[in-house]
Amino acid sequence: MSDDPRFGLRRTVTLPGPLRLDGGGLLSPVDIAYETYGTLNGDASNAILICHALTGDHHVASDHPVTGKPGWWVKLVGPGKPIDPARHFIICSNVLGSCLGSSGPATINPATGDPWAMTFPVITIRDMVRAQAMLLDHLGVQRLSAVVGGSMGGMQALSWAATYPERVASAVVIAATARHSAQNIAFHEVGRQAVMADPKWRGGDYYAAGDPPAAGLAVARMAAHITYLSEAGLTAKFGRKLQSREAKTFGFDADFQVESYLRHQGLSFTDRFDANSYLYITRALDYFDLAEEHGGVLANAFRGSATRFCLVSFDTDWLYPTAESRTIVHALNAAGAPASFVELRSPFGHDAFLLDSPELNRVVDGFLRAGEGR
Amino acid sequence: MSDDPRFGLRRTVTLPGPLRLDGGGLLSPVDIAYETYGTLNGDASNAILICHALTGDHHVASDHPVTGKPGWWVKLVGPGKPIDPARHFIICSNVLGSCLGSSGPATINPATGDPWAMTFPVITIRDMVRAQAMLLDHLGVQRLSAVVGGSMGGMQALSWAATYPERVASAVVIAATARHSAQNIAFHEVGRQAVMADPKWRGGDYYAAGDPPAAGLAVARMAAHITYLSEAGLTAKFGRKLQSREAKTFGFDADFQVESYLRHQGLSFTDRFDANSYLYITRALDYFDLAEEHGGVLANAFRGSATRFCLVSFDTDWLYPTAESRTIVHALNAAGAPASFVELRSPFGHDAFLLDSPELNRVVDGFLRAGEGR
Repeated sequence: MSDDPRFGLRRTVTLPGPLRLDGGGLLSPVDIAYETYGTLNGDASNAILICHALTGDHHVASDHPVTGKPGWWVKLVGPGKPIDPARHFIICSNVLGSCLGSSGPATINPATGDPWAMTFPVITIRDMVRAQAMLLDHLGVQRLSAVVGGSMGGMQALSWAATYPERVASAVVIAATARHSAQNIAFHEVGRQAVMADPKWRGGDYYAAGDPPAAGLAVARMAAHITYLSEAGLTAKFGRKLQSREAKTFGFDADFQVESYLRHQGLSFTDRFDANSYLYITRALDYFDLAEEHGGVLANAFRGSATRFCLVSFDTDWLYPTAESRTIVHALNAAGAPASFVELRSPFGHDAFLLDSPELNRVVDGFLRAGEGR
Repeated sequence: MSDDPRFGLRRTVTLPGPLRLDGGGLLSPVDIAYETYGTLNGDASNAILICHALTGDHHVASDHPVTGKPGWWVKLVGPGKPIDPARHFIICSNVLGSCLGSSGPATINPATGDPWAMTFPVITIRDMVRAQAMLLDHLGVQRLSAVVGGSMGGMQALSWAATYPERVASAVVIAATARHSAQNIAFHEVGRQAVMADPKWRGGDYYAAGDPPAAGLAVARMAAHITYLSEAGLTAKFGRKLQSREAKTFGFDADFQVESYLRHQGLSFTDRFDANSYLYITRALDYFDLAEEHGGVLANAFRGSATRFCLVSFDTDWLYPTAESRTIVHALNAAGAPASFVELRSPFGHDAFLLDSPELNRVVDGFLRAGEGR
């Protein structure tokens, strides 16, 4: 695809696999869309894998090919930033199950010639990580200087360190959790039910009709979006401010700015995301429980690991609150793994990890440089 | 209707009105379904009005005529309880806009002979209160010994004290707020969009078809239900416990108990509530801003009032958190109104006001008796 250096190297690779999945099945072949920035150095010691969140993509630091918007983490990744193509070989791939180039329910099942739809295997965060490991093999990267991610990306970073400890020198885990809570699952279940309640979902077989369940997916996104913002942040941004009208309309149009904002968030999401992928990735998140994968003891996930960890939480994040990061740090301490942890202040709730945060940049920069100096 | 004393006196009255609404219209006639318990004493000084929450009803202390379940507040209302038919003349009416006997979108517009549906006027909390005042006029109750409510019922109690200060000796306001926040509005907007996205909603004209938008309403209820529970309460009750199956199914059935619970909450709600009423009452809640009705200063709502106030919040209630009650208390203090305030501990979030709480009973009992002794 594009080799324009502004965009990094943008590629899609089809790996033969098979990829053995936690659900028991095998996936073969495996498409992975990814971007790289910078150059792998002589001893292949400068690779950093960046993992994206639920609805993210691999355009971490390049303009989005459709929307033209800047990459989703240019605040942290780019020339002069903590993760810098001048120093690092940066890799970011679209997760397995997504709809932006990697294999997922919207891609073609080679056995049938039709989209997988709901016959795509249910996947886990660890399956996403295994697919990324296959990509690194393909790229000749045996060991990562660091794996870095926020939200679901942070869960992948944790899973990387637990699954391939010998391949991860450092892990940066931002605004994440070691397991989805009952409340996390509940919100996702609302979203899934909203999609599945839309008659256009058709059991997932909506691709041929070209008329996807946009209304249901928009409702799902609206519900999820509330969890990404803090109550105080919503109040500061919108409060009870009305739309341009002078007074309440005593009707059901979007009277309040927050209503209009949410509707826009829901609708615009349906232009860029596949409803079935939303089902699959929320399911992977709900299944995530790193302790369960290690005999019910979270510390066991990290025992004997030489990986360094950096945990960051935000004080107004109620989706994955600071207590979740603290639980991880306690487990790391119990396992004897080196861990630094900071709770940053932000009014922006969970979304803070995507926004401009000089403190976050300082933390990540310091942590990565200390690791590179060793 | 029934005069069986076990059920209290169950009645529906059609009042001629007209009821002047905040939206500018007039409603006439006005049906009000209500129950009474106990007897009005000689000087008509023992009347207590109980106000119900969003999806509540007037069966506050009697078995529900359809489900057979006990009244929704038998913990607080009944023989030997703080609100006692032996001492009090207790009134509870179905709010305007609801679907359980009082005028609302599902009732017949006498001008057309068809259900009002979305031509029913948009109403406010104050409109509900005005309808209740008409009912009290009909019952010969000039002044309330107390108005008592939780959640939306607490907002009605506040609105009663602000709108008819001379008619309210005491107000008990539990787990409530003086205005809906941006986050409150956001959650309701998700619910409304879920209903309206259901093709069976048909712009609100689904009554004749007999096929209401149950799927959309169920999603709306699921999203709202999460806000009624605390994160810790959900974790304690469900955590990540799976359904009867031994292991994850790697599918999209309700694997986790919390999913099954939420689906049940959503579905069972659609048997007992009208989707259009849900739209109207959530709208009334979102419009609620007692300060706005009084020149932008909350204290103005209570200035010169002789009403005594009792405010109660619950520490894990994140829908209407303690800070909202504190704001009301500050306004009452600024207005010179007598106010007592207590935050109770409970693991159950907003729902705590409906559950067994000896502390809540003690607070309400002590406050009411102190008022009756004056």
